[in-house]
Amino acid sequence: MGGEISNMSVKELIKDMAKKAKDASRKIATLTTDIKNHVLLDTAELLIQKKDEIQKENQKDLEVAKEKGLSKAFIDRLTLSDKIINSMVEGLKDVASLPDPIGEIPKMWIRPNGLQVGRVRIPLGVIAMIYESRPNVTIDAAALCLKAGNAVILRGGSDAINSNMVLASIIQEVLKKHDVPVEAIQVVPTTDRDAVLHLLKCEEEIDLIIPRGGEGLIRFVVENSSVPVLKHYKGVCHVFVDKFADIDMAVDICFNSKVQRPGVCNAMEGMLVHKDIAQEFLPKMAQKFKEVGVEIRGCTKTCEIIPDAVPAKEEDWGYEFLDLILAVRVVDGFDDALNYIAKYGSNHTEAIVTKDYARSRRFLKEVDASLVLVNASTRFNDGGQLGLGAEIGISTSKLHAYGPMGLEELTTKKFIALGDGQIRS
Amino acid sequence: MGGEISNMSVKELIKDMAKKAKDASRKIATLTTDIKNHVLLDTAELLIQKKDEIQKENQKDLEVAKEKGLSKAFIDRLTLSDKIINSMVEGLKDVASLPDPIGEIPKMWIRPNGLQVGRVRIPLGVIAMIYESRPNVTIDAAALCLKAGNAVILRGGSDAINSNMVLASIIQEVLKKHDVPVEAIQVVPTTDRDAVLHLLKCEEEIDLIIPRGGEGLIRFVVENSSVPVLKHYKGVCHVFVDKFADIDMAVDICFNSKVQRPGVCNAMEGMLVHKDIAQEFLPKMAQKFKEVGVEIRGCTKTCEIIPDAVPAKEEDWGYEFLDLILAVRVVDGFDDALNYIAKYGSNHTEAIVTKDYARSRRFLKEVDASLVLVNASTRFNDGGQLGLGAEIGISTSKLHAYGPMGLEELTTKKFIALGDGQIRS
Repeated sequence: MGGEISNMSVKELIKDMAKKAKDASRKIATLTTDIKNHVLLDTAELLIQKKDEIQKENQKDLEVAKEKGLSKAFIDRLTLSDKIINSMVEGLKDVASLPDPIGEIPKMWIRPNGLQVGRVRIPLGVIAMIYESRPNVTIDAAALCLKAGNAVILRGGSDAINSNMVLASIIQEVLKKHDVPVEAIQVVPTTDRDAVLHLLKCEEEIDLIIPRGGEGLIRFVVENSSVPVLKHYKGVCHVFVDKFADIDMAVDICFNSKVQRPGVCNAMEGMLVHKDIAQEFLPKMAQKFKEVGVEIRGCTKTCEIIPDAVPAKEEDWGYEFLDLILAVRVVDGFDDALNYIAKYGSNHTEAIVTKDYARSRRFLKEVDASLVLVNASTRFNDGGQLGLGAEIGISTSKLHAYGPMGLEELTTKKFIALGDGQIRS
Repeated sequence: MGGEISNMSVKELIKDMAKKAKDASRKIATLTTDIKNHVLLDTAELLIQKKDEIQKENQKDLEVAKEKGLSKAFIDRLTLSDKIINSMVEGLKDVASLPDPIGEIPKMWIRPNGLQVGRVRIPLGVIAMIYESRPNVTIDAAALCLKAGNAVILRGGSDAINSNMVLASIIQEVLKKHDVPVEAIQVVPTTDRDAVLHLLKCEEEIDLIIPRGGEGLIRFVVENSSVPVLKHYKGVCHVFVDKFADIDMAVDICFNSKVQRPGVCNAMEGMLVHKDIAQEFLPKMAQKFKEVGVEIRGCTKTCEIIPDAVPAKEEDWGYEFLDLILAVRVVDGFDDALNYIAKYGSNHTEAIVTKDYARSRRFLKEVDASLVLVNASTRFNDGGQLGLGAEIGISTSKLHAYGPMGLEELTTKKFIALGDGQIRS
């Protein structure tokens, strides 16, 4: 563990893992829902039983991290506290309780020649997940991939290698007990950086790569992968306070969008205010933001109305602050708001506050983002909040999945055709 | 035309086209179905009116191709005969008659807090299509992309540059007439090979690349693209004649699968025969194949039963012949057939001929291919035949689309949420 692999180059190791995952995936694809749920629930139980062992391994990672002088925030994310272990246990139970998407055939149709045709939901096959420090992702991602019938290769942050390895050994113990190939869920057992690059080239074996982490990691994956990637660069979310907004509602929604959890991707980073309502709305809003210490970086008009706003620089527009900082722009009209969002948005989450029917329809239709809201907080862009049950990430690119990715996004559909001897003429 | 671009590097040219396409895509996404259909039908009419002009430009390409000594088959594919022009016209009318996928919301649901959530079908945005010699693809692809609300950049084969440019000018004339941005449909006006590479790097502007052509082209695209790719490498399709097959039906299905059009991706390339039926089935089948000159490359057992079969070499298994040549293997059982398909298949089309209920179910469930058939010809793997109306290609990778890609596969879904002031607690 922790970096050294004997007798095998990293390239060979990764290729071997990928091939084993592909072989295993044929079996995983046909597991019954019962077996998959038993694996999930037994893993939950074993996590509780082996809590001390998990925390002992986690401690090794934490000590190294402290020696390296890594930040407190980083160490927090790395820590497998009782609370985090409990949340992993609850997560496993939640995934077990979700309906199994595999095998669903929404409709079948009959062709003029009598051939009966339909599309059936199947697993993707092999998914590789590349993520940074949080070791709880190991369990969350493994659970979702398994429930959707996929084999998964997990490549966590090098700082969490001991934590990830012990979690993998626990899942594999359960897999073995249920006679499921242990290669269904594998953790890359080396911290060698080349491992990621080799994973990205296993096009024959891996069907999907999901990177989760900073923009640098994601760009590296996109630029080097021959395997399809589902990615999420950043969340630069806006609320547009229309001239027909209910002012109290707009204040509540903007406050919630910015302040409820400022460090996450669905927090508001930019607020657009229609000029006809700015004079009335902005002072109330600014007062509320001031109470909790939100720094406002405003356009010229904003700064005229809110005296203690900081003049915004060009780079503040479209910036993901992930902090109690907000860019505020007064716009001349509806089209200006749409153009601003098209230019500075990140296709993540965009909201309008309005009482006007036609404007709500236009916003919903014309704004290109994974979630477009009317009169609600941007913070709802989350698989759980939208009713998907769980999520493995949020996609801001449009192929295959756009928005929160739940179980269904970890599957695909194949065609089936039932005939009685049909041939083509 | 035909290679030189003044005052602008190829890189700048492509980036400029991509940016213009992205700008145009916002407008295209919101066009009504009526406008899109008018553009398609008027283009059909103008193709007929300008037939002479099209064929004059096509003639330039044909002369160059003949000078180069290109094959008759190549020149056939390059020729815009009256028949091909008529098929483009009919294709445009067909696409106009298809239902518009944009705006569809299959269901909405209400969250416990009253938030109404749904997913609405939207265009992907900008699609780039990279294809080889057939200039009719220019019209077919443009029609499908436009109907699905996308802007499209078309990069045809360099041998068809004059043909493609005149087709583009005709569509753009119609777009202009209907006040639709002409950048909705652009043909790359240079044969410079670097143009493809630059397209593959326009990740900010292009949402999807679809390559159509030989395996070399597709591998190049996959290895170099930062933009998501929908690809189809090859079709190595099999028919498994089970021991419970109806022999006459099996003969008809295998004959149709191999012979009806041997040069295409959904033709059968390998035939698997259960050992218990081989003695009875193979001589009948061989007789029928012999009449039309199909060369059989068989395993040892096959060669024992069919005296004039050629012994197969290892490279014949899983090979895409695209010709009247067939690899035939006698298998010991059902699992051997599944294992063979998993090893040598290309995830394209797999069929079983059987009268057994349980075996039909197992085959449908366990075989991983974009189309799995029971008792029908592999030749049905085609968007038109399966009832999709039209297709832009067949995907053998699983993300986003698996199998024939119709209009729906040129779209994605975004989430929408309609609230009354909901915030997250």
